[in-house]
Amino acid sequence: MTKPIKRIAVNTGGGDAPGLNAVIQSVMIAADNRGWDCFGIRDGFNGILFPERYTEGGVMRLTRERVRGIGHLGGTILGTTNKGNPLHFPVNMPDGSVREIDRSDEIITYFATHEIDALVSIGGDGSLTIANALHQKGLRVVGVPKTIDNDLDKTFTTFGFDTAVGFATECLDRLHSTAESHQRVMVVEVMGRYAGWIALHAGIAGDAHAILIPEIGFDMGKVAAKIREREAAGQLYSIVVVAEGAQPRDGHRELLAAAEIGHAERLGGIGEQVSQALTKETGKESRVVVLGHLLRGGSPTSFDRLAALRFGAAAVRALDAGESGVMVSLGINGVDYVTLEEVAGHIRNVPMSCDALQTGRDLGICFGD
Amino acid sequence: MTKPIKRIAVNTGGGDAPGLNAVIQSVMIAADNRGWDCFGIRDGFNGILFPERYTEGGVMRLTRERVRGIGHLGGTILGTTNKGNPLHFPVNMPDGSVREIDRSDEIITYFATHEIDALVSIGGDGSLTIANALHQKGLRVVGVPKTIDNDLDKTFTTFGFDTAVGFATECLDRLHSTAESHQRVMVVEVMGRYAGWIALHAGIAGDAHAILIPEIGFDMGKVAAKIREREAAGQLYSIVVVAEGAQPRDGHRELLAAAEIGHAERLGGIGEQVSQALTKETGKESRVVVLGHLLRGGSPTSFDRLAALRFGAAAVRALDAGESGVMVSLGINGVDYVTLEEVAGHIRNVPMSCDALQTGRDLGICFGD
Amino acid sequence: MTKPIKRIAVNTGGGDAPGLNAVIQSVMIAADNRGWDCFGIRDGFNGILFPERYTEGGVMRLTRERVRGIGHLGGTILGTTNKGNPLHFPVNMPDGSVREIDRSDEIITYFATHEIDALVSIGGDGSLTIANALHQKGLRVVGVPKTIDNDLDKTFTTFGFDTAVGFATECLDRLHSTAESHQRVMVVEVMGRYAGWIALHAGIAGDAHAILIPEIGFDMGKVAAKIREREAAGQLYSIVVVAEGAQPRDGHRELLAAAEIGHAERLGGIGEQVSQALTKETGKESRVVVLGHLLRGGSPTSFDRLAALRFGAAAVRALDAGESGVMVSLGINGVDYVTLEEVAGHIRNVPMSCDALQTGRDLGICFGD
Amino acid sequence: MTKPIKRIAVNTGGGDAPGLNAVIQSVMIAADNRGWDCFGIRDGFNGILFPERYTEGGVMRLTRERVRGIGHLGGTILGTTNKGNPLHFPVNMPDGSVREIDRSDEIITYFATHEIDALVSIGGDGSLTIANALHQKGLRVVGVPKTIDNDLDKTFTTFGFDTAVGFATECLDRLHSTAESHQRVMVVEVMGRYAGWIALHAGIAGDAHAILIPEIGFDMGKVAAKIREREAAGQLYSIVVVAEGAQPRDGHRELLAAAEIGHAERLGGIGEQVSQALTKETGKESRVVVLGHLLRGGSPTSFDRLAALRFGAAAVRALDAGESGVMVSLGINGVDYVTLEEVAGHIRNVPMSCDALQTGRDLGICFGD
Repeated sequence: MTKPIKRIAVNTGGGDAPGLNAVIQSVMIAADNRGWDCFGIRDGFNGILFPERYTEGGVMRLTRERVRGIGHLGGTILGTTNKGNPLHFPVNMPDGSVREIDRSDEIITYFATHEIDALVSIGGDGSLTIANALHQKGLRVVGVPKTIDNDLDKTFTTFGFDTAVGFATECLDRLHSTAESHQRVMVVEVMGRYAGWIALHAGIAGDAHAILIPEIGFDMGKVAAKIREREAAGQLYSIVVVAEGAQPRDGHRELLAAAEIGHAERLGGIGEQVSQALTKETGKESRVVVLGHLLRGGSPTSFDRLAALRFGAAAVRALDAGESGVMVSLGINGVDYVTLEEVAGHIRNVPMSCDALQTGRDLGICFGD
Repeated sequence: MTKPIKRIAVNTGGGDAPGLNAVIQSVMIAADNRGWDCFGIRDGFNGILFPERYTEGGVMRLTRERVRGIGHLGGTILGTTNKGNPLHFPVNMPDGSVREIDRSDEIITYFATHEIDALVSIGGDGSLTIANALHQKGLRVVGVPKTIDNDLDKTFTTFGFDTAVGFATECLDRLHSTAESHQRVMVVEVMGRYAGWIALHAGIAGDAHAILIPEIGFDMGKVAAKIREREAAGQLYSIVVVAEGAQPRDGHRELLAAAEIGHAERLGGIGEQVSQALTKETGKESRVVVLGHLLRGGSPTSFDRLAALRFGAAAVRALDAGESGVMVSLGINGVDYVTLEEVAGHIRNVPMSCDALQTGRDLGICFGD
Repeated sequence: MTKPIKRIAVNTGGGDAPGLNAVIQSVMIAADNRGWDCFGIRDGFNGILFPERYTEGGVMRLTRERVRGIGHLGGTILGTTNKGNPLHFPVNMPDGSVREIDRSDEIITYFATHEIDALVSIGGDGSLTIANALHQKGLRVVGVPKTIDNDLDKTFTTFGFDTAVGFATECLDRLHSTAESHQRVMVVEVMGRYAGWIALHAGIAGDAHAILIPEIGFDMGKVAAKIREREAAGQLYSIVVVAEGAQPRDGHRELLAAAEIGHAERLGGIGEQVSQALTKETGKESRVVVLGHLLRGGSPTSFDRLAALRFGAAAVRALDAGESGVMVSLGINGVDYVTLEEVAGHIRNVPMSCDALQTGRDLGICFGD
Repeated sequence: MTKPIKRIAVNTGGGDAPGLNAVIQSVMIAADNRGWDCFGIRDGFNGILFPERYTEGGVMRLTRERVRGIGHLGGTILGTTNKGNPLHFPVNMPDGSVREIDRSDEIITYFATHEIDALVSIGGDGSLTIANALHQKGLRVVGVPKTIDNDLDKTFTTFGFDTAVGFATECLDRLHSTAESHQRVMVVEVMGRYAGWIALHAGIAGDAHAILIPEIGFDMGKVAAKIREREAAGQLYSIVVVAEGAQPRDGHRELLAAAEIGHAERLGGIGEQVSQALTKETGKESRVVVLGHLLRGGSPTSFDRLAALRFGAAAVRALDAGESGVMVSLGINGVDYVTLEEVAGHIRNVPMSCDALQTGRDLGICFGD
């Protein structure tokens, strides 16, 4: 039988997502209601690995007072980082080379020394892989999935995605009238390096005319044809949503050639390239709006706030039930659990058969194929 | 083999819900992209049953121009009604009595006469029962679920609910600071006659201290105890969310007695009664806010807009595939279909095992039990 | 020459309004940037008058850390109260009677003893009268106007009003579609005991069909006529906005008689009474929505946040310039100052000549006259 | 005495701004309530100058049905343009040169031929100059000011600005948490070619650390110093708001040299240049977000909706009173009128003495000087 828990810690890793603070709040309160103490590790695991950086301590006691009201705030009160994976920690060698060392034992030691019995680790694929490694070494760990792109496998959705889609949709709404009055093509670049969920959902909800996602190599000619088709029907503007990871079918070469823009790489992302190529092919004025940085912040929607609170409480219940090495997930009947082993390294892409994609096609949206 | 479709109609029944217009828009465009004409029946089936009321016709041709931009608007451009079920149509008899007659044949005849091949019917339990009856009589019908309470069985969720929960949560956020500065109990009554989903989701996301839902008969003493417990901890205010269908454990008698308010029935709903009973039991000032009418309106959230667009397109795809007598539903893998037979008359309640309820308990929220 | 300031205090009195925290934040930072210490008095002056109630002190040191991010939050971190005016403090006498005593000397003494040089007092008419009395007794005081009703004289507007109007307008938007689909009259009661600014501004922006304000005694027959006129034009619903202080032209008697509702007083405010009277006069179903409690809370709009930050900084600048006994106000050229003497006891009503009222008439809105 | 009006026209010119549709709605209804017919000219004056482009007519009859609900929509149902000033209309000459001709007589003739008695012209400096020219030629014209930058003289504010500031502030709110978690400098470029009002108001309300506006030539070293000062205080991120028309004190030369970015001009606006220069000077990672296109669209705030409705009604009242050659303006006591003569060609800049600027300084915001 597992030892009863008295103290737990929580941390947040990777990029920020709306809802992180609500998970922290939920973990703290659910723990406190069980009589457990709850601690927060700062900036991923930096609070443990670099205690000297924190004048007030790299691991902070979380109280009800401290977490009151934070569920509504974007960001994370613990800080986060996507640098310095403790499993592959970069160290500068005397000969100038860089070697990676495994510093996970320092974390295990910290928990043992401070008599902290378990960890709730909130993060994406990378953070959950670290969580799994710590679990293998004997630490009791429960993971909470965090991915604003919605590309984690084994969970229906997670917090942050709804807020990002909602804001991207609002931005598309705003661009319609301006694009129309100036008779322009507006190219809107959104997050989505490997999976096009944000582009797909916001694009449909926001009445985009073309949506380019990583899962479908696009043919620039088809996108241009869509714009010309609209033109012919008296619709003198178009909105094109591009996921940052979208790629032309025959590689960048073709796209760059089309736009004769040898310096495109320097100009920024795929949005800029698509914009220039479309201007070249259609003769229409085109502008790019890059939403990336705006999508990670902001107060979570009520959907994301609730999801985050449910995930936090479910993580504490799992620890209370003696579980370790599992991740909280959302299934059709509510919160469920999967092993961290199953999750690591898998990406959930937009399947070609998904009905949202079919909806887009039914509505006449061009996907560049 | 089924006859190819050339013309379809769409209607909306029951109370309004954010997203109805997006379904209509999606049905119209998906039909038009297949070369079908699309018509809208006004005010449920009144456009067919009472053509004389409509100077410009009770059934209107829907065009791309007509549906442009409506996906963002609350309400329904077709109008709706929750009076005059065509299966049980009330008729005043000469002797002063009221008899119910079945007028569904008039609808079947209308479709035949006007060569409209199929119907997409958007509505709740009542409307879908009518849709099923029309299907039994040979009309090709696909249903789209509409329930702002989220209490329809066989679908994970539907449009409108997210918008309602989001707005209720915003209202709770607004009430916290005022309740606190005035050291009051705030009782917030939300929709939910048979199922407490809105109260449960908004209550958790909006940091309520007690949530009363139809599925859990509440003990007023337990709610009062929660308020006194907070008082003792220096929290001099409390927020109580009450679903309109919530009931005290031992019936209204006990509640009314507690409040000595014989005229409570006249005073309004359960919110007012709970408020008065709490004042009597705790001695604290209490106020009621009734959100009912505010929750049905408004522009749909991007989640609801997308769900509505997916439902509308899926309904058209089903008709295109020769289906009839089915309802579009949302499952874990996206849109799916169930028979109208399965859906009718079933309510989806909050199960006692659901993790959202457990989350509430983990966070210390009182459910009156 | 006035003594240089080293320490100041700030307090908030009366009902809460969105933006109070932004004023506090601005006062604290502007003071800190001058090298002054800043303290917050809790719950009006209760922190000074009842130190025993506050285990952590009735007057708290404000730091940059403490005010970080609070500008976005509704309510006030200092607490507020509209009970216990220190100039007329109610005391229970041995004979059972209640006498009012002046406790303002205790406040003066507190400031002297603790070497706090000046006070920024944020509040409405009542709080500013107290502020003026303290100024007369020699304390250096600058007032910041707070009135969600927008009825303070000598200032163009103040923070909180824009947030309240914005939310009331959103609620009206939400009610249109529901009122229309149910063919109902919706009566929406908003704040405004003496002045109808919120009703007037939100009513026009939110497309109301009738607006009843305290400045215009209304004739219920005229409101009913407007509803019937809309009915005749095929508009089967109407939205009526009522300020809580609106009154029928010939007194309540007439209204109550019209509605035959002897118990109306007990039923709640003027909204309920208007609703019942309209049902009686027009035969239409009518519903009331009371927004009062919802309008005080919530995150301030950017307009109110900016106004609050400007007011706070301007109060500190005034103190720095040796001013006392003045209130910060907003004029056409930005922030200005008026004496507390001029402000006290004056209400700013909606003038009959104001163009917003004329706009309402031009748009065909009924004002009941 | 002036001839009584029977028919008027309205048009919108220049870039779009939230509230244009509300002005159109207000003009139409206020005219209809006087028994006047109301017409809308499409795309500035193109509906008159190029009738052949409009299959359904370049001038459309506006009805109550047509304007219902449009007050909430961004853009303009009439379309707009900022090309083809009728006073200086570019014509391609046979010799390949371009000559400008005055086509305003065609407009005058159109009004005479179609017996349209007056024009309400909604637009910025350019459009109002045209309006004035038409007034000089005898047409009855009232102007309504439109400038999202808030830089028109002789009016306190106008519609659109509040919506733009509100959205820019929301974007700043969203960027704080992301900038902080990634310890970055975020440079946010907003509209404001000649006047820095949007940057100033949104920057203060959104807690920016530096604000660069056209009115203050900035010293990049001072901005960098502010960022380093924050760094030293443990604040590892900074938000810099830049108006598109902001310029370094000693010209672009210095800025470009600092950033060693000879191709900066091609890279986009001042935001990108400031970002690169800051990275060079502080060694910190920096990102740019360009909000320009997002600020013009969207549903107007209630403030802007009300302002727009007031302006529209006031324009109709002015025509009704026999006025011409005037512009509606907003003064301290509500709507007022100034002559078009006075307005044309004047820009309202941020004065160095304005209290908002002082507020920024009091709060420690760096303005680069």
